[in-house]
Amino acid sequence: MNYKPLNIAVAGLGTVGVGVLKILKENQSIISNKTNRLLQVKAVSARDRHKTRDIDLDKIEWVENPTTLAEAENIDVIVEVIGGATDPSKSLVETALKNGKHVVTANKALLAEHGHSLAITAEENNVALRFEAAVAGGIPIIKTLTEGLSSNSIHRIAGVMNGTCNYILTRMEESGLSYKKIFSEATRLGFVEADPKLDVGGIDAAQKLAILSSISFQSQIDFKSIQIEGIEKISLLDIENAKSLGYRIKLIGMSQLTEHGIYQEVQPCLVPDSSAMSKLEGGTNMIIIDSDFTGRTYLSGPGAGQGPTASAIVSDLIDVVSGKISPVFGIAAKALTKVKKGVRGIDRCYYLRLSLVDKPGALAKVAAVLGNNQISIDRMRQKAHDGIIAPILIVTHETNLANVKKALTEINVLDVCLKPPVSIKIEEI
Amino acid sequence: MNYKPLNIAVAGLGTVGVGVLKILKENQSIISNKTNRLLQVKAVSARDRHKTRDIDLDKIEWVENPTTLAEAENIDVIVEVIGGATDPSKSLVETALKNGKHVVTANKALLAEHGHSLAITAEENNVALRFEAAVAGGIPIIKTLTEGLSSNSIHRIAGVMNGTCNYILTRMEESGLSYKKIFSEATRLGFVEADPKLDVGGIDAAQKLAILSSISFQSQIDFKSIQIEGIEKISLLDIENAKSLGYRIKLIGMSQLTEHGIYQEVQPCLVPDSSAMSKLEGGTNMIIIDSDFTGRTYLSGPGAGQGPTASAIVSDLIDVVSGKISPVFGIAAKALTKVKKGVRGIDRCYYLRLSLVDKPGALAKVAAVLGNNQISIDRMRQKAHDGIIAPILIVTHETNLANVKKALTEINVLDVCLKPPVSIKIEEI
Repeated sequence: MNYKPLNIAVAGLGTVGVGVLKILKENQSIISNKTNRLLQVKAVSARDRHKTRDIDLDKIEWVENPTTLAEAENIDVIVEVIGGATDPSKSLVETALKNGKHVVTANKALLAEHGHSLAITAEENNVALRFEAAVAGGIPIIKTLTEGLSSNSIHRIAGVMNGTCNYILTRMEESGLSYKKIFSEATRLGFVEADPKLDVGGIDAAQKLAILSSISFQSQIDFKSIQIEGIEKISLLDIENAKSLGYRIKLIGMSQLTEHGIYQEVQPCLVPDSSAMSKLEGGTNMIIIDSDFTGRTYLSGPGAGQGPTASAIVSDLIDVVSGKISPVFGIAAKALTKVKKGVRGIDRCYYLRLSLVDKPGALAKVAAVLGNNQISIDRMRQKAHDGIIAPILIVTHETNLANVKKALTEINVLDVCLKPPVSIKIEEI
Repeated sequence: MNYKPLNIAVAGLGTVGVGVLKILKENQSIISNKTNRLLQVKAVSARDRHKTRDIDLDKIEWVENPTTLAEAENIDVIVEVIGGATDPSKSLVETALKNGKHVVTANKALLAEHGHSLAITAEENNVALRFEAAVAGGIPIIKTLTEGLSSNSIHRIAGVMNGTCNYILTRMEESGLSYKKIFSEATRLGFVEADPKLDVGGIDAAQKLAILSSISFQSQIDFKSIQIEGIEKISLLDIENAKSLGYRIKLIGMSQLTEHGIYQEVQPCLVPDSSAMSKLEGGTNMIIIDSDFTGRTYLSGPGAGQGPTASAIVSDLIDVVSGKISPVFGIAAKALTKVKKGVRGIDRCYYLRLSLVDKPGALAKVAAVLGNNQISIDRMRQKAHDGIIAPILIVTHETNLANVKKALTEINVLDVCLKPPVSIKIEEI
């Protein structure tokens, strides 16, 4: 046993911060068996000192301003679980790294926005910046990418990375209720972030994807280059249509090495019924990694929650105390390349839903627009119609998103088109 | 860049050994980006120098006796891919560790038999003994258990760990052909080890399970305490019956913390159709980890093959060169506890298939035996009968294996029992 303990400060005592303290206490003997050194929480900081928390803080120093933790001489590691890309998180993490303190964080927003400069600071100061908890807490995906598959060249990473969206989509399907109703249900159950756009707008998934992309493709983290579309426009009708075609709708984050560079996107996709990804229920996340020598690896587990997130943090702390201080994103931050702008996604098939006037010739006009935009039709279904609206489902052959967008804009202004047409990518994953 | 390369010797140039050389060459720039140090194969050893191999060995020293590699002063790491629990593998690994060389191996047999003493030797000499490639090459399960989930207390680990058995079982189901026919097919395709008992007898899966158990439960590796049953006795009839009940048959390796100690077994089980494990096809492996704070984590990927296995070895080499020399089985080998003998498995439901004489009173006799052995019936089906044999399917309530075995022995000697009764555990995983 090394008798000098690792002194930890926990900034933020929400669900996750409290979880970290719980695990360090409850699994103390397991942990010290592995580390041969005591992991000791010396100081904490949170907004409200008087809030009732399910832990004993008696012997732990309380600090009002979290940023002062970065200056405290008796602290070796900061656990940052305040969240957000701005202060106090940003200055806390920055100052801590500059002062030679390791940082373990669950803050995907901070990493998505400032990950590259923080990595440079960490590496200049020879300290660890770890964030297993920032992406899918119950899945050791950061470690799998940086270490487990380190001998491989990765060409694609894709997954369901937001439990809230997955809950909403699966609940819509099983209940037959509208997006609006299930969104309210999810909000009532506390599954939706204070700013719902983070979840249902795809931002949260995109922040996670940005982190995974950087490690997978040895590129600078670049949240802004991700094409993001949320699930707000997914209607029950689309879910039912997808089902009838042998698919389910999932919000997929995907980053792929194309011949022109890295293409990153978060968007709802139709995935085949038979795929493992289509079977994910509720808050479970799944990430698929395609690499040259290993082939396809699947990882799946709880995406959020106190236990999984806090345990990812404590596992990172165990690595830090064991001296595992690797480059933050797998290779030296200064060697990470910039993501090229304007890279186009790989061609895919698309699901199109159109509402046309129920008259002869309507379909011919639509078909002409598709043809003019080099979109060919694989399958088409005209659903039961009432003499007013003819609902049409089309599955296209592979084409690119730009063509689809252009065609849909043109279809939308046709006199035979009664409602804005809908398109969803099909990902045969 | 550190200009002193890491000097590697590869002992064994079968599929995996050749794969290691290929990856080190093809992914050299990716790897050196991560390691800042050249990984260089200095020497190789294999049985047949003149065999045609798909790699250039010109600048690499050829050594006739692999054991001499353990003495070579210019070698830092031995990659042992000869296989087998005996010499030359055993003495090569032992001597290398004693001489302060790191060892990376894919040799599950050696670890299952001598893992504990080898770990002690490695730790006494402060060198790494790594074996990600020994269990499910395409799945970084060793790293996930030792590091990714290190803050958790694990209470169960279960999985499909032998691709050959999984191939045979899935092919039987889809083709409707007998075990014997599909076994021949698998042999013809080169999927079955020279000694088939290793695959279909469950030995290979048990060797892997022994390794995973040791890490999961901080116990000394103990292959002998595993209850092993292979798939040789699985009939097409059982596969079809399982299907009609909503299950598929998989060879499951499972290690579980019970109130009396660790229970380890490898045996064919009925798993529900709806479970991720039931959907595994062909050579894909899947491992499920249940832990206290994280909950359930799934990992899945190719279980064998040149690319996945060799890439696991090279990822281990990258860890070694990065100075990650952790305890071999997660905690100091000397602190690993002994596995208690005679621990009983947790009660489960069982599938029973009986062939009774088609006469009144036959079933009553069987029911009496089950009742006397505290086995109660959940579901029963009498299948179409012909006046001679009445085929009976029974799903029991939860009971223990000892009761089931005793009851089956008693049923087998009943005058109404025409063929030996069959039992398969149901694992609602």
